Amino acid sequence: MANSRFEYVKQFEREHHLLPDTYIVIRVDGKGFHKFSEEYKFDKPNDLRALQVMNRAAQAVMSQFSDVLMAYGDSDEYSFLLRKQCSLYERREMKLITMFASSISTNYYYYWNEEFPEKPLKQSRLPNFDARAVTYPNFSLIRDYFSWRQVDCHINNLYNTTFWTLVSKGGMTPKEAENKLIGTVASDKNEILFSQFGINYNNEPEIFKKGTILMREMTQEESEVNESELSSRQKQRIEKKRKKAEIKTYHEDLITNENFWTSRPWLSL
Amino acid sequence: MANSRFEYVKQFEREHHLLPDTYIVIRVDGKGFHKFSEEYKFDKPNDLRALQVMNRAAQAVMSQFSDVLMAYGDSDEYSFLLRKQCSLYERREMKLITMFASSISTNYYYYWNEEFPEKPLKQSRLPNFDARAVTYPNFSLIRDYFSWRQVDCHINNLYNTTFWTLVSKGGMTPKEAENKLIGTVASDKNEILFSQFGINYNNEPEIFKKGTILMREMTQEESEVNESELSSRQKQRIEKKRKKAEIKTYHEDLITNENFWTSRPWLSL
Amino acid sequence: MANSRFEYVKQFEREHHLLPDTYIVIRVDGKGFHKFSEEYKFDKPNDLRALQVMNRAAQAVMSQFSDVLMAYGDSDEYSFLLRKQCSLYERREMKLITMFASSISTNYYYYWNEEFPEKPLKQSRLPNFDARAVTYPNFSLIRDYFSWRQVDCHINNLYNTTFWTLVSKGGMTPKEAENKLIGTVASDKNEILFSQFGINYNNEPEIFKKGTILMREMTQEESEVNESELSSRQKQRIEKKRKKAEIKTYHEDLITNENFWTSRPWLSL
Amino acid sequence: MANSRFEYVKQFEREHHLLPDTYIVIRVDGKGFHKFSEEYKFDKPNDLRALQVMNRAAQAVMSQFSDVLMAYGDSDEYSFLLRKQCSLYERREMKLITMFASSISTNYYYYWNEEFPEKPLKQSRLPNFDARAVTYPNFSLIRDYFSWRQVDCHINNLYNTTFWTLVSKGGMTPKEAENKLIGTVASDKNEILFSQFGINYNNEPEIFKKGTILMREMTQEESEVNESELSSRQKQRIEKKRKKAEIKTYHEDLITNENFWTSRPWLSL
Repeated sequence: MANSRFEYVKQFEREHHLLPDTYIVIRVDGKGFHKFSEEYKFDKPNDLRALQVMNRAAQAVMSQFSDVLMAYGDSDEYSFLLRKQCSLYERREMKLITMFASSISTNYYYYWNEEFPEKPLKQSRLPNFDARAVTYPNFSLIRDYFSWRQVDCHINNLYNTTFWTLVSKGGMTPKEAENKLIGTVASDKNEILFSQFGINYNNEPEIFKKGTILMREMTQEESEVNESELSSRQKQRIEKKRKKAEIKTYHEDLITNENFWTSRPWLSL
Repeated sequence: MANSRFEYVKQFEREHHLLPDTYIVIRVDGKGFHKFSEEYKFDKPNDLRALQVMNRAAQAVMSQFSDVLMAYGDSDEYSFLLRKQCSLYERREMKLITMFASSISTNYYYYWNEEFPEKPLKQSRLPNFDARAVTYPNFSLIRDYFSWRQVDCHINNLYNTTFWTLVSKGGMTPKEAENKLIGTVASDKNEILFSQFGINYNNEPEIFKKGTILMREMTQEESEVNESELSSRQKQRIEKKRKKAEIKTYHEDLITNENFWTSRPWLSL
Repeated sequence: MANSRFEYVKQFEREHHLLPDTYIVIRVDGKGFHKFSEEYKFDKPNDLRALQVMNRAAQAVMSQFSDVLMAYGDSDEYSFLLRKQCSLYERREMKLITMFASSISTNYYYYWNEEFPEKPLKQSRLPNFDARAVTYPNFSLIRDYFSWRQVDCHINNLYNTTFWTLVSKGGMTPKEAENKLIGTVASDKNEILFSQFGINYNNEPEIFKKGTILMREMTQEESEVNESELSSRQKQRIEKKRKKAEIKTYHEDLITNENFWTSRPWLSL
Repeated sequence: MANSRFEYVKQFEREHHLLPDTYIVIRVDGKGFHKFSEEYKFDKPNDLRALQVMNRAAQAVMSQFSDVLMAYGDSDEYSFLLRKQCSLYERREMKLITMFASSISTNYYYYWNEEFPEKPLKQSRLPNFDARAVTYPNFSLIRDYFSWRQVDCHINNLYNTTFWTLVSKGGMTPKEAENKLIGTVASDKNEILFSQFGINYNNEPEIFKKGTILMREMTQEESEVNESELSSRQKQRIEKKRKKAEIKTYHEDLITNENFWTSRPWLSL
C-alpha cells in the first residue's frame, strides 16, 4: 500500500538469513523459572505435571512447524531441530526465533490451564521464554548438540535429586545441602543417595534422568533424498506426509545408542 | 558448571549486540490476526475490546521493561521505544526480541481472558507475535518512525471503515467492496462515507483514527541528562523513578503536534 | 597498554566470526579493470602477460596463507578455497577479507613490475581489488562454486573472443560488434568465428577457455583426517607439510572431470 | 548475463549494509610492520620518510574517496572519517573495507618507490594493511574516537622515544631498556629523557608527538546542511566541490582544542 514520506525509516531495518543447507537448532529457555517454580509451588526436584506442560507445549510447537524433525527438552528448555532444507520464513533468523518464543509461551499457557486448573497463572508471573537459533553445517554436530543437552540434563538432575533429598529427607537447610555438594563428582552424589537414603539413582524415572525426545516418525519412503530435484508437486506431497507423521515421545539415551540415529536416516537429509 | 566433551557445539552460537548509543525500537506484530479475528468474531472494522486486550498487554510489557519510554500501537501491532542508554540484556538482539515476543503473547493471553471470559482461547488459534528490533541513531528518526506508524494506522483505518460500511450498511459482498475501493484516494473514501452513509470520518473515535500512545510520564528532574557521568547509586535512583513513573494512555496526533515531543525532553536522552 | 577515558569508543566495534566447520571461499575482484586494461593497453581479448601477473600474484597469496588449498581465477578475479578447519585470524571475516584484498593488490603490483618493466604503474590507476568471503557447509557446494566460476569464464571468453575478432579482423566498430552479438547463443558465436574467420574456438589456448587452477598438491598421508583429534605437535607437522607442498598450475575442466576431485580427497577434509 | 545451473551458490553470499545516518570510521592498520621496519631499516624511534610514505598514501586514499572528510594517522595506522550521509558502495561493509585496505596498500607501494628509490620492496615483505569499519551514531563519539587515537599516539611515541634513547644513547640492550621502563608513567619517562640525556620531550617534532591530521577544508557554503532535501543537481555540485576541496595537513592537538572542531561545522553534517 502506498504510504508516506516517513516510510524511509524502514531502511534502518536489518535482516539476517540463516546460511542455506545447514541444520537449524532453535533452543527456547524459560525466563526466571526458578522463581516461577516457587510461585506455583512445583514439586522438587521434578514436578511431573509441569514437565508434561512443557512437553505438550513443545509437541504443539512441533505440530505447528512441520520443518521440525525432532526436539529434545528437560526442565524449562527445549531444542528443536529444523531440517537442512527448511525455508520457513525464508530462514529469516528474527522471524524464526520470535515465532518459536511466542508459540512455546502461549502453548505453555494453554497446557498449564489444562494440567493445573487449580492454579491459574498470575499476571505478575507469566511463563516467558527466550529463543536462539544456531546453524550446524553437518549432522555429526547435530548428534553432539543433542548429546550436550542430554549430558546437561543428567548433571542437573543428579545434582537436584541429591540436593532435594538432603533437604527433604536429610533435614538440611538449602545452604547446608549446597555446601555439602561443593566439589562432589557424580559418584559422590550416587554414594550419598545410596548410603544415606537407600536411593539407587539408576531407578529414578527415565523422564527425569534422560529428558524427553519428541520424534516426528517418518518412513524411508516419506523422506526422499534430494529435495532440490523434486517437482513442486512431489514436494507438496512430502510436506503433507511430514505434517501428518506421528510425533512420538521417548525418554532414552541418545548419546551412545548408535541405532537411535541410524534407524532414522531422514533426520540428516 | 563443568560439562562435557560435547560443549564445543556452543562455538557455533552467534550474538549480535545492538550498536550502543542508538535508540532501539522493538515492533511486535500479530501472526495471522486476520484469521484470529474471524475465529473469535471480532467486531468490524474495529473491535474495541480486542484493542483493549492489545493495549493492556502492551502496557504490561512496558511495566515489565522499564527501559521502554513510550509505545505506539494499533490493530495487532505495537512499537516500543527503548531509551538510547538502554543496556537491557547487554543489548543482545536475540534476547531482546524473543523476550518481547514472548511477553506480549502471554500478556495478550492473560488480558484476553479478562476481556473475553465468554470466549476462551483455543489451542488451534493462539495469539502469536513476531518481533524485530531496529536501531536509530538520532531522535529525529524516532519522530519519523512513529509518524510512519500513525500514518499507516490512518490509511488502514480509513480503508477498513469504508470497506466494512460498504459491506454492512451498503449490502455489498466483500469482493464488491474491495473492487469499489481499488484506486480510490483518501478524499474518495471520505466522500463515500459521507454522501452514501452520512458518516463524517472525522467523528470516528480517536482510538481508531490515531491509534494508542502509551507514555511513561517523567519529569525533567527524573530524567537527568548524562547518565554516563552519574554514580551507580544515582543511576539506581533514576531507574527506580522510571519504574514507578505512571504510564498514561493517549489517542492523539503525534505527527504535526510539535509540543507532543518538546514537552517530553527525556525521551531523547 | 593502559589507555585513556576515550577507549570506550572501542565498544562500537563489531566482529563477525565465520561459522566453524564450513568451507570458506574468498573471492577477490579487480576494481575498474576495464579502464585499467585500457590505460595499460592490454592485448584484446586476452593479454597473456597480464594473466601471468594475476596468476603469479594469486600464487603468492596462496603461499602466504597455507590454509588455502586451491584457487581458481580468470580475467581480474580469483577465488581461494580455505580448508574447513581453517582458524586463520580466528575466522574473523573483516580481517580475512581485508588481508586477502591487500595481499593480492601488492603482489599484483610486484609482479606487474616484473612482467611489464616498460609500463610502470601510475598513481592515478593502481591495481585495486575488493574481496568477499562466503561459507559453504559441504563440499558438493564447493564443486558447484568452482563450476560456476568456470562456466562464467567460458561464457565471457567466448563472447570476448568473438567480439574482438569482429572488431580487429572484421573491421566492425565496437558498437557494431556489440549489436551483432545481442541475442546470440554459444553456437552462434562459434559459427561466426568459424565461418567468417576460420577460427575453431576449441583450438584457442586452454588458459583462456578454462581459466587457471592453482592446486596445493598434498599426498593422502599429508592430510590426515580428523585434525581435532591430533596432538598439537602433529598439527604443527601437518601445517609445515602444507606450507611446503608444491603449488601446481592447471588449465583444465573441473566441471565434468570427476577424477579431478576424487583424486584429491584432502580438499574436503 | 544469463548463466548456469551452478549460479545458485550465490545464495550463500551475505551482505551487511552499515546503519544509515551514522558516521563511519575506517581504520587501516599495517600488518607486521615491526618486521617490515626491520627489513627496510627504518630510523628509530621514528622514520620521517616512512611517515611521509604513510601520509601521502593516506592522502591519496582521501582524494580517491571524496566521502572522506578527515583522516588521522600515526605509525602504520590511519583512521578515515566518512560523512554521515555517505552512500559509497551502498554502505556495504565488505566492499568499503576491502577497497580501503587495497587502496592504502597500493598507494603505500607507490609512494614508497618515490621516497625510497634506493630500497625496492621485496616480494617476501610487501606492505599489507587490514581494515575495519565502525559506525558512530553522533559526532561527540567521533571527537572521542580521534582523541583516543591521538592519546595512543602520544603514549606510544613517548615510550618509543625513551626506549630508543636508552638504547642508542644510553648504551642499553633492548631488553635492559624494556625492563627499565616497566611500571614507569609519563612523568618518569620525561624525567629519564631530561635528566639523563638532556632531552626535553616537548621539543620533539609535532609530527611524532601529535600524529598527522588530513583535513578536507571546506567552506560553510560548500557544505550545505540537509542533503536529503537537495535536488540531484545540487548534490552533484556539492560533490564536485568536495572533490576539489584542498586536503591540508596538520600536526596539532585535537583533544582539548575546541576550536579545531567548532571551526569546521561541516564535519558533523
